This record gives sequence, structure tokens and C-alpha cells, in this order.
Amino acid sequence: MVAYLDGNSLGRPLRATAERLQEVVGDEWGARLIRSWEERWLALPEQIGDELGRVALGAAPGQTIVADSTSVCLYKVLRAAAALRPGRDEIVTDTANFPTDRFLVESVAAELGRTVRWIEADPVDGVRAEDVAAVTGPRTAAVVLSHVDYRSAAIADLTAITRAVHERGGLAVWDLCHSVGSIPVELDAGGADFAVGCTYKFLNAGPGAPAFLYVSSRHHEAFGQPITGWMGAADTFGMAAHYVPAPGIRRALSGTPPVLGMVGVQEGVALLAEAGISRVRAKAVALGQWVLDLADAWLVPLGFTVASPRDDARRGGHVTLRHPDAERLARVFIEHGVLIDFRRPDGIRVGLSPLTTGFAEVRRAMERIRELAG
Amino acid sequence: MVAYLDGNSLGRPLRATAERLQEVVGDEWGARLIRSWEERWLALPEQIGDELGRVALGAAPGQTIVADSTSVCLYKVLRAAAALRPGRDEIVTDTANFPTDRFLVESVAAELGRTVRWIEADPVDGVRAEDVAAVTGPRTAAVVLSHVDYRSAAIADLTAITRAVHERGGLAVWDLCHSVGSIPVELDAGGADFAVGCTYKFLNAGPGAPAFLYVSSRHHEAFGQPITGWMGAADTFGMAAHYVPAPGIRRALSGTPPVLGMVGVQEGVALLAEAGISRVRAKAVALGQWVLDLADAWLVPLGFTVASPRDDARRGGHVTLRHPDAERLARVFIEHGVLIDFRRPDGIRVGLSPLTTGFAEVRRAMERIRELAG
Repeated sequence: MVAYLDGNSLGRPLRATAERLQEVVGDEWGARLIRSWEERWLALPEQIGDELGRVALGAAPGQTIVADSTSVCLYKVLRAAAALRPGRDEIVTDTANFPTDRFLVESVAAELGRTVRWIEADPVDGVRAEDVAAVTGPRTAAVVLSHVDYRSAAIADLTAITRAVHERGGLAVWDLCHSVGSIPVELDAGGADFAVGCTYKFLNAGPGAPAFLYVSSRHHEAFGQPITGWMGAADTFGMAAHYVPAPGIRRALSGTPPVLGMVGVQEGVALLAEAGISRVRAKAVALGQWVLDLADAWLVPLGFTVASPRDDARRGGHVTLRHPDAERLARVFIEHGVLIDFRRPDGIRVGLSPLTTGFAEVRRAMERIRELAG
Repeated sequence: MVAYLDGNSLGRPLRATAERLQEVVGDEWGARLIRSWEERWLALPEQIGDELGRVALGAAPGQTIVADSTSVCLYKVLRAAAALRPGRDEIVTDTANFPTDRFLVESVAAELGRTVRWIEADPVDGVRAEDVAAVTGPRTAAVVLSHVDYRSAAIADLTAITRAVHERGGLAVWDLCHSVGSIPVELDAGGADFAVGCTYKFLNAGPGAPAFLYVSSRHHEAFGQPITGWMGAADTFGMAAHYVPAPGIRRALSGTPPVLGMVGVQEGVALLAEAGISRVRAKAVALGQWVLDLADAWLVPLGFTVASPRDDARRGGHVTLRHPDAERLARVFIEHGVLIDFRRPDGIRVGLSPLTTGFAEVRRAMERIRELAG
């Protein structure tokens, strides 16, 4: 029997998603055919975005939209952020950020003639507001950070860091991939400018399900992005001579929205709404505490070290354990049905997805790890 | 009973797609969980791309990949094409091209400081090689055209136009949205440099299913695109310090591939492989001839005019009829179950998707149109 501790990479499917897919294929696509675009589908990117904003992001309606992949969404907001700060030549991120974020910051900086300024944060504690304050200033156009560190699970202080960025005149771009659906996010209250995130982890939306993008309403008028497909135009079917962006968040769209992928997002958000993000968070904290307790008792004596914050308030939805032989051990664990994941160079992530991860499952997994690593 | 003559906007679902979706959700996602990425999913963008290339595009393996939306794919190839011709300052397209194409050409030209050069083609005959020859020259970086015109269904001569572009030192970028799966395409033999297209029309892959992108192997080494997400990197899970593009067509990827959407593409391509593109094309020609015959006999006397080429060899998979009152009439037809579509300013498209469109269905639709417009 598998212990699934990788819901932070790919959440399990919901029964409702499989059922809705059949309805969408049979009834909406099969029976209503092209008419479903007007009847239902065209509105989904904003409808699901608004609901996601309400349930998980602390975002008022009209600022969140489901679209593309995280990479494409991040490209769009990075370009938009840079355009909003034309006189500033630095984009800031941290050396331990997720590869896509670092790669895109470098790519956008290169194409726009900007410079990347790197934060070197503590690998367990993650990026702190003082780290950001130390490298930002009058040259800072934007600061791009992950809300939860994909390796250590350290939670960055979104509000304090955003304030530090704003005090220096820059814009704050948040990658919520490892926080959305796992910890409460307060984009509006925290003053975030832009955010992106994926839906296939704690939102259980399915492999490669579409991402989302948040643009604070105060930037809507000036917000532009270069992938000017018909779905972002003011009058999609007007076949106008030139591109006129849609009002509001819809201008962030490009191509035809991925309907089957959005079904998974919709169901994932609906389940989260039912459970409530604060209850999800409470269970994640309890699961995380338990992993730490068992790790201290059973695994630290075997050469593991804890590489996630011990302070519950600073730890997201997974716990990372380091071991010199982690790559080989991870393969062994997976072969024996303990599905954790390995992150280079030596991290084993124990993912805790409260909607589907049980306490008994965690205990079984930790016992098995102790046996196999002993 | 509905007559569905809009399969050129959204193809009908295949039974196999609904079945495969259940398997993928239940077995691959639900049971194998994260392991399915390595076991199956990571390879799909290239596997399906290769098969699509073989079955429908005249493209040898390793040049076609399933990704993103058409808009995002077109953005990537336009940026790549411009980068390959740095000393040339004009991007060419035609004023009747699909909005996304025109919008993106203008957007990319603006961001790179290039100029858009417009072709004004005959609205029925579409873009001819001589039209292209007349506006291209030493300043031409790239020419972006639709293989089949979304309004008239005119087929552009891919080989002759590509040759004309190459003779002037430019690159040919083809939008295959309205030709893929409907008429045979010969990208390799025709010498095309880049191509993009969607899969939700004649390939029946589903609403908003992922698009595809073709890069001729002679450009692979120099091919770069700015949306440098982890899936386009040489070692996706290597978490490298800097982006190194994957070898070959894989560097065109950005974010995590949309698995549920790819299922529809895979099944659509499989059905096309079974039927054979030449048989599909033969039926499309016969259906088109019949629409023209019935239109001449029944609808021209009622004020309709034919706005598609009468030469079978120059007409793609739909027939467009113009009428001064087309917008209102289209609504009436749709209300009465004849699902055509309206394209501004005055076109009614009769879409012929040979895998699912029957002769009896076409006759019934044309009879109904005659009654309703009479």
C-alpha cells in the first residue's frame, strides 16, 4: 500500500473531477458543441479565478484569472512589472528560487537590458525582509520571490517583504506554487502587485492543469503583456484591425482557455472552499509537527537532518529532510511504496497535502523510511 | 436534430477520448500518481508531436511538439524568427489574417523595434506567391501567413510562398490552424521554417486543447525563445544555476505539459492516422462541392454569394457564404439547430469536418437554411 507524500508535486485526483470530466465531454462538448463557449466556457477563467481568489488568495474579485502554465504567467507579469518601472534597471530574486523563476528573471532581464540582482538567503530560513531590504533600492524594478520555498518550505513574510519592496519604489511579484491551497495567502491585504501559481499541487487540479495569475486592480489600467492573442482582446470575436486589450484582468489571457484542465481547477477550488483554508492549514501544521517529531526520534539518529523551519508559523506544507545519500535512498523509498520526492542536491521532501494525506499514512511512511534507511 | 457545421471551430469529441480520460485520471493520475510523469507524461509532448508530424504535417520526427496555446506558440516562433534575422527590420503578414496572428505580429514588431509590412490580398483567393513577392525583400525578417484563410478557406501555396520568402532571405512562419487535419500539409518538403496550429478543430482534441509548434531541424541549434521555464531546460530536474536549453524541439517547451488536454490530441491524431489524411481530404472536397452546388441552386437566388474559391484545389475544409443580413441569419440558423458560424462582417462559414460531418447532415442543413432565409 502506497504512502503518498508527494501531493505537493501532484495532488491526488478528486472523484468529482472524474465525474465532471465525463459531463463536460458528453454534455457540454458533445451535445452543446460550440455553443458551450458562450454558454459556459468563456467565463470560466475569470469565474474560477475569482473563486480561487476568495477561497485561497485573499484577493477581491476581478484580479485573478486561470490561464496558461505558471511559466507563461510569470513571463507575462515579469514583462508587465518591468514596463511599469521603466527607469529602474534591476530585477531581484534569490539564488535558491525555483529554476523556472530564476530562468525567467534572467531571460526577461536579458531581453529588456536589465540586470539580475541576487539574494543569498539562508537555505532553511529562506528569504527574510532584511535580505530584501539589503539588495533593493532606487534601481529595483521588481522583486520576484516564492511565497513558500520549494526546498525548505520556509514561508516568506509576504506582507513585510512587499512593504520593503514598495518603500524602495519597486514591485512585488509572488510565486505561490508551493503555498496556494496549503497556507492562507493575503494578496490584497499584503499589498502584492502580481502573483502567479500552479493548481496541480495542493489544489489537486491534475497534471499540467492551468496556472493562475493575479494582478492588483491598481495596476489594471497600465497592465500590458506581449502575448496578444484574441482571448485577451476587448472584443474577441470583433476581428478588429488592431489589438485593444480587454478591460481588467481578462487582458492577461492569450489563447483559447483549456477547458478540460479548468475542470480540475474548478473542482479543486470547490473542495478547498468546503474544507476551508484555515482547517487545511491547521492539519498541515499538525502533520508537519508529527513528521518532525518522528524524524527527530527515528531518523536523525540514522544520519538525517531537518532542513525545514521548526517554527510552525514559518513552515509550509512539506518537511525536507537532508541525507548525504538522499538520491539513492529516495529511489529505495519510492520502490517500496513511500512516495516522497528528491530535490537536489540532498533533500527528501515529505509532502503533506491535508485534504488527502492521513496521519496513519504519515506514520506508516516514517516507519518504512526508518526500516529502509536503517 | 442538430446539423453540426462548425467542426472547423470545435471538432466533436471522440468516444475514445472520453474513455482515455477516465483511464488517465483513474490509473495514471490516481493510481500511479507522481510516477506517471516519468513513466508516461514527460514524453508525450514530443511523442504526440512526432505522430502529428507524420500523420498530418509532412514533418520528420523531432521537429513538432505539443505545447501551450496557438497564441503562445506563435509568440515563441515569432521571437525566434526575428532573432534569426537580426539585420532585417520588417515582419510581413496580411490584413485578413486571423486576429491573433495580426495582433502578435504587431506586438512582437513593437517590442523588437521592427515594422509590420501588410499584404492586401484578394478576400476570396487569399494570399498568392506574387502578393508575397511584391512586399518582401532585403528588409524582410519573416512572413507570417495562415495556410488556410479562416474566412474564405483559400489555401495558400505553402511551397511556392515559402520559396519566394527564402529567395529574399526571409523566414516563412505558417499558421496551420485551419488546415491541420483537413488538408495534407508538407512542411518538410515545402521548406517551411516554423509552423504553429491548434488541435481543437479538425483534430477533435477538445475545447482549448494544447497547440503545436514546428521548428525545422535546420534551425534547432539557433532556436531560442524567451519563456524559459523548466520543461524547456536541458536537465529539467537538475535545478541548474542557469538556463541551458534542451537539445532539439524540446527547448520550445516552457511550463508543465497539460496532460488531460494532450489526451484529446493523442486520440484525435490516432483517429486521423486510421482514416488517413488523403481520404479525409477527398471527403472534404466532395462535401465542399456539394455545398457549392446546393448553394448555387438554392441560396444564391436568396441573396447569398459564395466567398470561397470554387477551385477544389484552392479551397480548404469549409465554405463561406456571404449575405448582407448574415449576422441576424446566423443567429436564426443556430436557433433552429443548424450550427454554422458567423464571421464578421457578413460571412457564414459552413464547416466540413470529414471525420464527423455526413452528407445527409449537410443536405439537411442546406434545406433548413433555404427555408429559414427564404
